[in-house]
Amino acid sequence: MTKNIDDIKKIIRDVNDFPKPGIIFKDITPLLLDPEAFDAVVTMLAEPFKNSGITKVAGMESRGFIFGVPVAAKLNCGFIPVRKPGKLPAETISESFELEYGTDSLEIHKDAAAKGDKILIVDDLLATGGTAAATAKLITRTGATVEAMTFVIELEFLNGKAALSNYNIKSLIKF
Amino acid sequence: MTKNIDDIKKIIRDVNDFPKPGIIFKDITPLLLDPEAFDAVVTMLAEPFKNSGITKVAGMESRGFIFGVPVAAKLNCGFIPVRKPGKLPAETISESFELEYGTDSLEIHKDAAAKGDKILIVDDLLATGGTAAATAKLITRTGATVEAMTFVIELEFLNGKAALSNYNIKSLIKF
Repeated sequence: MTKNIDDIKKIIRDVNDFPKPGIIFKDITPLLLDPEAFDAVVTMLAEPFKNSGITKVAGMESRGFIFGVPVAAKLNCGFIPVRKPGKLPAETISESFELEYGTDSLEIHKDAAAKGDKILIVDDLLATGGTAAATAKLITRTGATVEAMTFVIELEFLNGKAALSNYNIKSLIKF
Repeated sequence: MTKNIDDIKKIIRDVNDFPKPGIIFKDITPLLLDPEAFDAVVTMLAEPFKNSGITKVAGMESRGFIFGVPVAAKLNCGFIPVRKPGKLPAETISESFELEYGTDSLEIHKDAAAKGDKILIVDDLLATGGTAAATAKLITRTGATVEAMTFVIELEFLNGKAALSNYNIKSLIKF
């Protein structure tokens, strides 16, 4: 029997005090060990975009690769890896974003997308929205359009949607 | 028409002087942008193991996630992310390995595999074999068996197979 959202929610594991004391981390690794549940999640992520004309999926290093690659396969389109600085070998473009302390940045290959591409951004988690906003800026700089962003988990109390108010956002599981 | 190995070989891009002068980097990102070619690669990686009783696929951060996750789906089994230190939230085990300068280490969740599991290790590239050997040690420490290792690309001149002589090794494309 196909698993539903409530089944999936039970498979995601709370890990206390990670990455630091007081934080409850939503651990998706048990989901990866359950092929039926994982396929259900990938299907639910892809389904709303079956007829949206998505040409490429972009996923952020590293857990965005885990969900983005199979979503791209379901939509029969290409996958753009969005990576930490210095990881992509050819010519890149880069965007910085704010962290709690300091800044970080993300890169894509300059030729990964172009005008006419309609991109779906996929990640495991919507928290403050910083990495998703930086990814959207990278995509836009290539001339492509960000069609939507979809997340397995949304931490609503962090209000990431406010940072992404220009975009069409979906998430499967809200905490 | 389904793409064959020669088609795939042409899609992989040489990037000169990355990550440092004199190195020719084999860039798999153009393959990710071609859904038909990517699916052909995933099918070729999985096919030899269809009847091997593989229970889980292990893939190394980050490009091993890109190929390992869809291979696990083809084999209808779970996926174990093998990660850099400090990334996995629950209890981990760790293995160090030698780099050209210094050492690095990899981790898996302690409960990701157990006695009775038959594991296929998947990565994009077999170079010196250091990360694959460390991954195999992690898997073995859980009580599980390493059934085989499979790679998209093997750099034969680096002789990684010598470091992995106890294992069943496959690779699709040899340079």
